Amino acid sequence: MENLITVVVDAMGGDNAPHEIIKGAVEAVKEKQNLKVLLVGQKEVVEKELSAYDYPKERIEVIHASEVIETGEPPVAAIKGKKDSSIVVGMKLVRKGEADAFVSAGSSGAILVGGTTIVGRIKGIERAPLAPMIPTKNGASLLIDCGANVDARSSHLVQFARMGSIYMEHVVGVKNPRVGIVNIGVEEEKGNALVKETYPLLKECKDINFIGSIEAREIPSGVADVIVTEAFVGNVILKLYEGVGATLISKVKEGMMTTLRSKIGALLVKPALKSTLKSFDSSQYGGAPLLGLRGLVVKCHGSSKANEVKNSIIQCISFKEQDISEKIRENITVAVKKTEEEQ
Amino acid sequence: MENLITVVVDAMGGDNAPHEIIKGAVEAVKEKQNLKVLLVGQKEVVEKELSAYDYPKERIEVIHASEVIETGEPPVAAIKGKKDSSIVVGMKLVRKGEADAFVSAGSSGAILVGGTTIVGRIKGIERAPLAPMIPTKNGASLLIDCGANVDARSSHLVQFARMGSIYMEHVVGVKNPRVGIVNIGVEEEKGNALVKETYPLLKECKDINFIGSIEAREIPSGVADVIVTEAFVGNVILKLYEGVGATLISKVKEGMMTTLRSKIGALLVKPALKSTLKSFDSSQYGGAPLLGLRGLVVKCHGSSKANEVKNSIIQCISFKEQDISEKIRENITVAVKKTEEEQ
Repeated sequence: MENLITVVVDAMGGDNAPHEIIKGAVEAVKEKQNLKVLLVGQKEVVEKELSAYDYPKERIEVIHASEVIETGEPPVAAIKGKKDSSIVVGMKLVRKGEADAFVSAGSSGAILVGGTTIVGRIKGIERAPLAPMIPTKNGASLLIDCGANVDARSSHLVQFARMGSIYMEHVVGVKNPRVGIVNIGVEEEKGNALVKETYPLLKECKDINFIGSIEAREIPSGVADVIVTEAFVGNVILKLYEGVGATLISKVKEGMMTTLRSKIGALLVKPALKSTLKSFDSSQYGGAPLLGLRGLVVKCHGSSKANEVKNSIIQCISFKEQDISEKIRENITVAVKKTEEEQ
Repeated sequence: MENLITVVVDAMGGDNAPHEIIKGAVEAVKEKQNLKVLLVGQKEVVEKELSAYDYPKERIEVIHASEVIETGEPPVAAIKGKKDSSIVVGMKLVRKGEADAFVSAGSSGAILVGGTTIVGRIKGIERAPLAPMIPTKNGASLLIDCGANVDARSSHLVQFARMGSIYMEHVVGVKNPRVGIVNIGVEEEKGNALVKETYPLLKECKDINFIGSIEAREIPSGVADVIVTEAFVGNVILKLYEGVGATLISKVKEGMMTTLRSKIGALLVKPALKSTLKSFDSSQYGGAPLLGLRGLVVKCHGSSKANEVKNSIIQCISFKEQDISEKIRENITVAVKKTEEEQ
C-alpha cells in the first residue's frame, strides 16, 4: 500500500506490558488503514499475545528483541548496555528510516536518552524537549519541557516555543497557537534569571504568537496553547496536576459517602460526573512527544492502558503526514541563519 | 493585663478592606482574651467601620496612617515613598518592639520588601521566606518558600528547612515534622543543580527530620510536613494548587448539572460535599508567615474574608507564646557557629 505510515511500538515497556500495549496496537491498525505497526519485544511472548486477536496480518510485524530495560535502571547505562532491548532495537529502526515513529510506555529516562543518542536531534536543535498535553477547562495545552534535562538556557526555551507552536498547529490543529512562558507574575520585569532572559527573546520571535507570562494559576483554565518552561518546573506542573486532581477526586468521593442522603445523591450524580471528569483525564490525549528528533518518539504513561497506546500510535500519523520533523528543521534553520546574519 | 500579645493589623490592605479586615480583628479579640489589636489605617474610615461592632474597647486601638499602598505599585518604591502608609507605619511598630506581629492582606511585594527592610532579618538569616500552609488529603503542609526572591542558593534552602521545621513543630503542633525537598524524582542523584547541592546539606542536618526528595505528585497526599523549595517553584506549586482545584470543582459542578437525574443527585450530595471540600480550602489555615524576621509578619490572601483574617491574627499568639523568633535565632546561631568551627 502507498503512503503506509510505520510506527514501532515497544511491546515490553510499561506497567501493563505486553497485554495492553499489544491490544492498543491491534486497535490502532484496525482503526487506521494507512498504518503499519512493528511490535518490538520478546518474539515468543508477543506472538502468543497477538494470537488472541483477529487483525490485518500484513500491517503488524513482530521484531525480536531479547532484552527488556526496567523502569529503575540508570538510563545511560541501560541504553549503552542493552543493545538488544526493545527500546534500542526499536529506536534504531527509526534512525535507519525503516520506521517513522517510536512509541513506548517504558522507562522515561531510557526513552529520553535513547531519543537523543540513537534517533538523534535535528541539526540546529540544542535539546529535545518532552511535551505532554495537559487537560484544561475546555481542551488541552502542550506543556514543554517536562523531560529530564534540567537547568535549561534561554536559547533552549526559544526553540521549545517554536517546536511546540508547530506541533500544536499541525498535529493538534490549533490555529495560531498562543504561546506563554510560566512565570510568578504577569509583569515583564518579574521572574527568575532564566525567564527574564528568555522573555525578550520570545517577544522578538515573529513566527510565534507569544502572549507573555502566565501564572501557574491560569494554566488549568486554558489561557495558552503552548506552555513554555524549563524541565524542572514543567515536571513539577505535570505531576502536581495529577496529584491535586487525584486528591480532590478522592475528597469528592469521600464527601459523597458521608451521609445516607449524600450516598443516594451520589448514585444519581455518578454517570454524568464520570463523563465530565473524563475530559480532564490526561490519558485521553495520548502520549507525550519528544520533539526535535530526526523521527518521532512518543512516551506514554507507565500505567497506560490500550486506549492511550492506541491514541499515541494514531497521533504519529498526523505527525508524519504533516511532516513535522521537516517543518521543525526548516524553521530552526531559518532562525539560526537569521541569528548568524544579525551577528 | 499581663502577657497581652499585640498584633498590628493593616486595616487598608486586601480586596475586602476595610470591612472584612476589621470584622476579623473584632472576632479575634472576642475569641482570645490575651490579644490586643492595633488597627492601622485611615482613622476616620477605620473608626466608622468599628463603630458598628460591640467589642472590648481596651483591646482594639486605632493608629492613623494616611496613605495606602495599592497592589499594583512597584514594591520597593512604595515602601520607600509612602512613609505614612498602613504597611510602613504598622511594620515600624513591630520593629520598635511596640507590637509582636503584623498581619496584612495587602500587596505581597510591599509586605515582603517591608518585612526585610523595616522589620529586619534575624542576625544570621540570609533570606526571609514566605511559607503558606497548603491543604493535603488529611491535613496541611508548610510550603517554604513562595516569596518573590527567586534564584536561591543551597544555604538559603537549608535555613528554610530549619525555620519551617521549628514553625511546624511549635506553632502548628506537628511533632518531629517530616522535611522533604521538591524534586523531579526520589533518587538522590536526580534534580537540578540547586537540589543536588542542597540534598547532602539537608542530610547532614541533625536537627531536622529530613525524609529526602518528594515529587510534586505526592505533595497533596501529605507525605511531608515541611516542603522545601526555592521561591519560583514554590510559587508555581501554590498557584497551580489553586488553579487545578478551582477548575476541577467547576468541572464537578458542570457534571452535576448535565442531566435531570444528576441535578436531583446534586441537591442531595451538596451539603456533605461542601463540608468535605472545606477541608481542602487554604483559607482555613490563615495567612502565610514571613519567617526569619525580628518579629512575625503574616501575609493573608488578597481576597481574605473575616474568617481568614481572624485565623491569621490568632496564629500570631502561638508564634509569640512559643517564642519562635528566639528559637529560630538560637538554632541559626548554633548552626552558623558549627559551620565556622568546621572550617
